[in-house]
Amino acid sequence: MRILVINPNTTAAMTATIEASAVASASPGTKVTAVTPAMGPVSIESHYDEALAVPGLLAEIARAEAEGSADGYVIACFGDPGLDAARELARGPVVGIAEAAMRTAAYLGRGFSVVTTLNRTRGRAEDLAAHYGLARFCRRVRACDIGVLALEEPGARETVLAECRRAVVEDGSDAVVLGCAGMAELCKEISAEIGVPVVDGVAAATRTVETLVALGLRTGDRGEFARPPAKPYTGLLRDFQVGSPIIS
Amino acid sequence: MRILVINPNTTAAMTATIEASAVASASPGTKVTAVTPAMGPVSIESHYDEALAVPGLLAEIARAEAEGSADGYVIACFGDPGLDAARELARGPVVGIAEAAMRTAAYLGRGFSVVTTLNRTRGRAEDLAAHYGLARFCRRVRACDIGVLALEEPGARETVLAECRRAVVEDGSDAVVLGCAGMAELCKEISAEIGVPVVDGVAAATRTVETLVALGLRTGDRGEFARPPAKPYTGLLRDFQVGSPIIS
Amino acid sequence: MRILVINPNTTAAMTATIEASAVASASPGTKVTAVTPAMGPVSIESHYDEALAVPGLLAEIARAEAEGSADGYVIACFGDPGLDAARELARGPVVGIAEAAMRTAAYLGRGFSVVTTLNRTRGRAEDLAAHYGLARFCRRVRACDIGVLALEEPGARETVLAECRRAVVEDGSDAVVLGCAGMAELCKEISAEIGVPVVDGVAAATRTVETLVALGLRTGDRGEFARPPAKPYTGLLRDFQVGSPIIS
Amino acid sequence: MRILVINPNTTAAMTATIEASAVASASPGTKVTAVTPAMGPVSIESHYDEALAVPGLLAEIARAEAEGSADGYVIACFGDPGLDAARELARGPVVGIAEAAMRTAAYLGRGFSVVTTLNRTRGRAEDLAAHYGLARFCRRVRACDIGVLALEEPGARETVLAECRRAVVEDGSDAVVLGCAGMAELCKEISAEIGVPVVDGVAAATRTVETLVALGLRTGDRGEFARPPAKPYTGLLRDFQVGSPIIS
Amino acid sequence: MRILVINPNTTAAMTATIEASAVASASPGTKVTAVTPAMGPVSIESHYDEALAVPGLLAEIARAEAEGSADGYVIACFGDPGLDAARELARGPVVGIAEAAMRTAAYLGRGFSVVTTLNRTRGRAEDLAAHYGLARFCRRVRACDIGVLALEEPGARETVLAECRRAVVEDGSDAVVLGCAGMAELCKEISAEIGVPVVDGVAAATRTVETLVALGLRTGDRGEFARPPAKPYTGLLRDFQVGSPIIS
Amino acid sequence: MRILVINPNTTAAMTATIEASAVASASPGTKVTAVTPAMGPVSIESHYDEALAVPGLLAEIARAEAEGSADGYVIACFGDPGLDAARELARGPVVGIAEAAMRTAAYLGRGFSVVTTLNRTRGRAEDLAAHYGLARFCRRVRACDIGVLALEEPGARETVLAECRRAVVEDGSDAVVLGCAGMAELCKEISAEIGVPVVDGVAAATRTVETLVALGLRTGDRGEFARPPAKPYTGLLRDFQVGSPIIS
Repeated sequence: MRILVINPNTTAAMTATIEASAVASASPGTKVTAVTPAMGPVSIESHYDEALAVPGLLAEIARAEAEGSADGYVIACFGDPGLDAARELARGPVVGIAEAAMRTAAYLGRGFSVVTTLNRTRGRAEDLAAHYGLARFCRRVRACDIGVLALEEPGARETVLAECRRAVVEDGSDAVVLGCAGMAELCKEISAEIGVPVVDGVAAATRTVETLVALGLRTGDRGEFARPPAKPYTGLLRDFQVGSPIIS
Repeated sequence: MRILVINPNTTAAMTATIEASAVASASPGTKVTAVTPAMGPVSIESHYDEALAVPGLLAEIARAEAEGSADGYVIACFGDPGLDAARELARGPVVGIAEAAMRTAAYLGRGFSVVTTLNRTRGRAEDLAAHYGLARFCRRVRACDIGVLALEEPGARETVLAECRRAVVEDGSDAVVLGCAGMAELCKEISAEIGVPVVDGVAAATRTVETLVALGLRTGDRGEFARPPAKPYTGLLRDFQVGSPIIS
Repeated sequence: MRILVINPNTTAAMTATIEASAVASASPGTKVTAVTPAMGPVSIESHYDEALAVPGLLAEIARAEAEGSADGYVIACFGDPGLDAARELARGPVVGIAEAAMRTAAYLGRGFSVVTTLNRTRGRAEDLAAHYGLARFCRRVRACDIGVLALEEPGARETVLAECRRAVVEDGSDAVVLGCAGMAELCKEISAEIGVPVVDGVAAATRTVETLVALGLRTGDRGEFARPPAKPYTGLLRDFQVGSPIIS
Repeated sequence: MRILVINPNTTAAMTATIEASAVASASPGTKVTAVTPAMGPVSIESHYDEALAVPGLLAEIARAEAEGSADGYVIACFGDPGLDAARELARGPVVGIAEAAMRTAAYLGRGFSVVTTLNRTRGRAEDLAAHYGLARFCRRVRACDIGVLALEEPGARETVLAECRRAVVEDGSDAVVLGCAGMAELCKEISAEIGVPVVDGVAAATRTVETLVALGLRTGDRGEFARPPAKPYTGLLRDFQVGSPIIS
Repeated sequence: MRILVINPNTTAAMTATIEASAVASASPGTKVTAVTPAMGPVSIESHYDEALAVPGLLAEIARAEAEGSADGYVIACFGDPGLDAARELARGPVVGIAEAAMRTAAYLGRGFSVVTTLNRTRGRAEDLAAHYGLARFCRRVRACDIGVLALEEPGARETVLAECRRAVVEDGSDAVVLGCAGMAELCKEISAEIGVPVVDGVAAATRTVETLVALGLRTGDRGEFARPPAKPYTGLLRDFQVGSPIIS
Repeated sequence: MRILVINPNTTAAMTATIEASAVASASPGTKVTAVTPAMGPVSIESHYDEALAVPGLLAEIARAEAEGSADGYVIACFGDPGLDAARELARGPVVGIAEAAMRTAAYLGRGFSVVTTLNRTRGRAEDLAAHYGLARFCRRVRACDIGVLALEEPGARETVLAECRRAVVEDGSDAVVLGCAGMAELCKEISAEIGVPVVDGVAAATRTVETLVALGLRTGDRGEFARPPAKPYTGLLRDFQVGSPIIS
């Protein structure tokens, strides 16, 4: 089984972190690769960034479909950008890390908290929790006010840890969800320190795709998620036309 | 007051229809212009099309912001593509035609039905109704199974009318919402025939933007909807970097 | 276009404040008049007051309908008293200031707070937010514990302002809704001081009625909101019989 | 214990039917009286009728409070008119027949249907089900299209029965709620014929008030439901001023 | 009328407290008996305890059904254990104290708080509030961190009282629900001290069963709640087979 | 990794079917065993059966915990009986087949239908969908009116298949969830015939437990799901006392 993990931003170092987490979580026999899109923002910290990350990630899915090189896909940004469009495009299943992390956390108790990066991204996480039916489980979305690319800087780990601790004490949460693909490597360490399960979406999504592929399950394609109809695309995005070389 | 109506698809004939409806609905003294993006799909009939329509529409907003040529914006596709991103980018208010149509219909009785084009787009309309808090008001989303660009063809008007009639009889709806910008010109005629109010989102959104601008109201920009942070963008989308010539 | 704004309480000074806000918000060419009912409470600060305000406001709508002197109506009390009954009675659209203010605020970001007068009226505002589908948008209803008729007294403005400030800081709201028609004149000033959009329901409702009338939209009257059946009324309220001189 | 049942319409024959049902359902030792208001509509079949029924019913509560002649109150119209206002006015508990009927039916299985009179009143019943938190339990509100005062006419009983039967077969409901005080006397008979429990709101509300009084429970009056502040009332409704002879 | 109140734990002293409250709340002419099951945990303070309390309580219902010795049943543990199963087994109505207490409190104002024993039981109470449609009414579930069997110890009453006081001040609740059958005897005293109505579930459920029996209402048994099909049971639980001596 | 799958009924043939599905779905290297409890009903077709199945399944978990023979658990009955209690008892994760099947189906499109056995079990499935936050995804729960132990009889397969087909055509569902552990072996075949993904809960839950164990995730045990306090148990259930030989 081959799983393609797409980091929707264009920062290769972050793709490497993500790939490490995805590979570490996969079963033996599953080949996991992470990829950086050829276009888009270096980090996703606004609705604007998220919208502009979508073409690049769709191109990666289209390429893999054309090559027949992947059985399933992970979208490795906590806003789950382009998820519905990706499901139309891919033959195999596509899972976002926010949906996988939050659905996984729902198995671990009555309520979880999300700990994310910038304050301004909290709204999107709350939206997704509601959209996935998890509003009752998601007790609070907390922000550390650390930029996505600053997670590696000194002090960042301590700030994230402190916020996770507050999730346990103040929210009474049974589990914590890390709200950014860039936090994947902190997962085990934080869990050990705060004494509750901590969910990394990259790992959760990778295993979820594995499960879907293993069980022969993919997006139902007889209605809303059928392959998009081919039609002219123009301008800068002309190559995104379904049937063009890049979206074959 | 100057309102820019963006048709997120690239079909100029449809932009003209939309502009006519927007202009007809605006108050005297309001200058309304509709624009066709320089890139993207000729029609929006899938999540994929919708995702790829966003860069083009954001570019139009950015251009108008750079020129200072608009006080508010309408996004004239019933999927409200790119709405949150547009709100981050624009100084003035931005309103989608689905949200305006559905919120307007909620003033007209206990329940409304949406009549849209292709079956596969119903899911998005249901999503939006829930997202805007209108699930209780939206009794049913009905599709005519007519493509967006086929609305002008012979027989299409009759099919839309028949579906609107069913909305009144079968759903018991007090009002009908037309679920596609391309249906704007049918609004008055259908209302006359079925005897209940029929809401065209282009008109509703244009008047809503007018109201917001007139009252000095714009998106709150102290949190989630603050201007996106400037950062590198790469590849085909490099010019979408905030601060670049096209997103000044 | 002629819009009748009904202040459901009997305090003429408050009617004047309301009229000023309504007139200021209307488009050129729209004639806005505010009216004080001939019966009822001097202010509305309980469910009891609200219930007893309804006959007087319905009489004003009936009078205007008989005269043919209005194309649409605003109910200018934040409890939206008698809204459903008024919709049955009026040929043109009827909009309450709570529904208009809250629906308008929903265009301005992810969440708003309501700042109202007495603590005991918070429940009604919360009820309305839920009823209009805006529970998710309405982060908190805050009270200043100032009586409706004391809003003009020294210190009141400062108290309202302080509560609005708390809405921004503590609730993280993108916008503030003023929860009393008597606060209309504070709107611009408070917005300037707290740096987020502030919505006055009188202005929002006046513009919304304008929009509905301009677009030819009125309450659907084929079901629940058809004209009430004529039938005998007795006692003190005998003149409220549909078909009587006052409810012609 | 003395319970006052208020028929909010002015039809004495219906008050007699209601009283019979209330008396039959009360415990030995409880004195139940039904009363017809001195003002208002002969039947309640619209939001307009409902609004105009409220002053008369509040006057009856105020009179009983002044006399000290009742320990608790039932509002015997399925729209629960004036319930919140009545709770502010009364020292003892006040229960509406819609809330009592629907909450009682919720003890009898997973779902119930409401069978009511005119089609146009269905919206109010749906509203109340949602307001009381019973949307999940209330599977459907069905109308017989019989006017409130026509329930005694030949054929009416058969029509109501047929609709109740459909509730069992089509909705799969475990219980049926009769959606009009005027249907009280049909309750036992219909239950026998359709084989599922049938709830009459007059009986349910009378017993609920009995329970609340017996347990020493009344509306909490430290916040929203404190006695309304005294203030001037004018015009036709001047005597409704709290502290006046009729609202002492 | 004969009501059987089942204390689902095996502590006879607590059964006595429960019986006292149930007897005190019943109408003259109603014979109320409380019973202690022959098997199960001495107190219910976990999901595990609750699950293991169910066989014993079902056996008591089955015995009473076989004897024909009860017209209705109360399940006197705030987790409402085994309620759906009991409804299948009993001919008469069955009411849990959590559902009765919470539905009763909903008649007393806009919101109530629950005050319960151990922190770990809060989740179950929140679940039940949601399940019964009362999430909007239930403002907060508070725990005293007192074990069920420690409620009689010195200081316990003060701790419960303090938590009830906080419910009024911090939650703004109109009423308080006592979240444990063992708190029944504190009800009147706490209400007197905190000045808002306090609901004891044992009393509320006893009166509710009385009401249902008096009105001839029992669980609808034509679908989900029909008598369970007879079938083999094995092992330790073999006597629980429907049709066996203990489940005749 | 060792996963214990508990068939909560006592029919060994059904345990074998379940084990086959669980084993087939597990990754290489995972040892899956299914077990039949030593007590309880031969099939679970009522709330009563479900309640009485819980002690036997908890005993199996306790035994495996005492032996240290399992890293995680599947509860293989679509009512997810005893799930919360099992989570308190087990050190490793515990997953029910209804929650796993429904959460898995939510990755496959906008909506799914559940196809279950007897009509009377539909209510429980609807309850669980709501409880897990999946009410919006679960379009309809359909029953075949086939007893759990009759699924192997001639004609049963055709009846299940026909109902699944209706789920696609009438409900417009993107996926179908099989609502009984006994249907596991039909999964692939039905999917092939109806052309949409079909989810078997046994397979989904087995893979979900695998994922949780692989990622080091187990139920958060610092609050509600901490190990149950030890205390006396009496009568037939005395050995269920925490700390006894069977619940060590």
